[in-house]
Amino acid sequence: MNKKTIIGVMGPGDNPRKIDVKRAFELGKLIAQEGWIILSGGRNAGVMDAVSKGAKSVGGLTIGILPTGNERTISRAVDIRIITDMGSARNNINVLSSDVVIACGSGLGTSSEIALALKAGKKVILLNDDKDGQKFFKRLGKKNVHVAQNPKEAIEVVKKTLHKD
Amino acid sequence: MNKKTIIGVMGPGDNPRKIDVKRAFELGKLIAQEGWIILSGGRNAGVMDAVSKGAKSVGGLTIGILPTGNERTISRAVDIRIITDMGSARNNINVLSSDVVIACGSGLGTSSEIALALKAGKKVILLNDDKDGQKFFKRLGKKNVHVAQNPKEAIEVVKKTLHKD
Amino acid sequence: MNKKTIIGVMGPGDNPRKIDVKRAFELGKLIAQEGWIILSGGRNAGVMDAVSKGAKSVGGLTIGILPTGNERTISRAVDIRIITDMGSARNNINVLSSDVVIACGSGLGTSSEIALALKAGKKVILLNDDKDGQKFFKRLGKKNVHVAQNPKEAIEVVKKTLHKD
Amino acid sequence: MNKKTIIGVMGPGDNPRKIDVKRAFELGKLIAQEGWIILSGGRNAGVMDAVSKGAKSVGGLTIGILPTGNERTISRAVDIRIITDMGSARNNINVLSSDVVIACGSGLGTSSEIALALKAGKKVILLNDDKDGQKFFKRLGKKNVHVAQNPKEAIEVVKKTLHKD
Repeated sequence: MNKKTIIGVMGPGDNPRKIDVKRAFELGKLIAQEGWIILSGGRNAGVMDAVSKGAKSVGGLTIGILPTGNERTISRAVDIRIITDMGSARNNINVLSSDVVIACGSGLGTSSEIALALKAGKKVILLNDDKDGQKFFKRLGKKNVHVAQNPKEAIEVVKKTLHKD
Repeated sequence: MNKKTIIGVMGPGDNPRKIDVKRAFELGKLIAQEGWIILSGGRNAGVMDAVSKGAKSVGGLTIGILPTGNERTISRAVDIRIITDMGSARNNINVLSSDVVIACGSGLGTSSEIALALKAGKKVILLNDDKDGQKFFKRLGKKNVHVAQNPKEAIEVVKKTLHKD
Repeated sequence: MNKKTIIGVMGPGDNPRKIDVKRAFELGKLIAQEGWIILSGGRNAGVMDAVSKGAKSVGGLTIGILPTGNERTISRAVDIRIITDMGSARNNINVLSSDVVIACGSGLGTSSEIALALKAGKKVILLNDDKDGQKFFKRLGKKNVHVAQNPKEAIEVVKKTLHKD
Repeated sequence: MNKKTIIGVMGPGDNPRKIDVKRAFELGKLIAQEGWIILSGGRNAGVMDAVSKGAKSVGGLTIGILPTGNERTISRAVDIRIITDMGSARNNINVLSSDVVIACGSGLGTSSEIALALKAGKKVILLNDDKDGQKFFKRLGKKNVHVAQNPKEAIEVVKKTLHKD
């Protein structure tokens, strides 16, 4: 079987916190170094853009599941452009196509992706400082929700998760 | 213009709490009595089924945005069946097609709908007892999130919201 | 069971032929007079707009499955607005939600809907003068494809089809 | 910019003709040898399966835009699995994500993809022996429709098309 391992990294596109962007770049780098493929929302904004740039900085492969085909909105660090023309309905494709989902930062789009991922039985790693969100999603998602303090810890959790399956 | 007012009622399908089902039936009744149309996820389960049954008990009109066309999964209280064959990606259609969204109860699918509705700039009324969820979504959605204690209060909020637009 | 009968009418939005628009209005009228609900692509253009106007002219109920929520693009003759934000991917929802599909006129979007409807096992009535298209789709869709010469004949075919099911 | 060239190959999954499967394998091989990425519907059936196998036989990279995540339905020759859970609505994603679309064989799903691709302004190459279909789509799609007699000719057309853009 040729199936590649795909790690989805979800996070705010617009008005992201600096620390989330920094963590996303680092995550992208670490994921690519493991030989895994990055999947993100694909826009040239915030966490989506940073995670793909991080992966490309070490020669990784990047997929963007894009809401539209508008050239000006697409991250230049995305190798493979999947054009959905489906707006936020694409969020479900993002999570279904990922072996594990990492939420880097917090926001409305990201929350929909966490909820949809857990609904589909996926493991979700929360890499953020949002204590309310962590509490809320841990209650709903139980054993499928993990909290990581930093990108390296997130990678360790991914490894354990992939190993188990 | 012929546009009808559509009120979306979202809530757990599987393993709902008794009180959420009871409130959903009451909500459906009250919404229909205002002359508004009910929109739900359309399955014959939990909150989706109860809200349509409530509306039909007083002669209302009901729309179901269905994940599949499987006859055995469709609420018999749904008049208009929109068959998406899109699984949870339909959740975005649910909220975009509603003038106001009421979340009756709490769960993963419902959380994705609350987040997607707020992302799209819709008003969301939380009719549940989930304090963590209320805190979390109020922080993210700000003025677009309202909490109601019971179906009647939810209807009052809908009225104010529709009046403002 | 409360299920209503929904007749989908598909046809060119932009640059429609005059005869297709005229037939669409007539179709809308006849469908509504049978007590059936009209479903269309919902835009304020061409066949979609005309079929809803025809239905409203005799007090029918109209559903539009809309590609976007942009107010200026929505037919004022649509009662129930289902906002998909999914562009042409909504074409599959159009046909899955219709008990029978009538193609009024010919074009690329309409062709995709005819093909998707037949793929899903739906009956399709071709009300157009496109002999090539009729030949092509009859070969692919076999007994599920019917050709009608005018709106009245299309309604007769719908009646027979609904009766059989 | 990191954007990779993606060639979509669409064709019958179930009950394909032997010649279409043979051509699909050859197409996959030739596309991969050009350094382009293959995109298909991803199922382990007919043209979809063969085109990915052809690409893998020479070390190419393959994307499958899958209708469901059901393991038993997925081609083992697909590297990157995009799980849509959207049935035939995914056909629009298939064509929007392809720089050029090649239709290898003829059928209902394939016809919907040809129509959707042309609707979106994409170039479509028909590699089949369906004279009616060729006539029909040439009339609708005009200069965006090309007919190829064999896989090599299809590759020549792709090259000219990519060069022009």
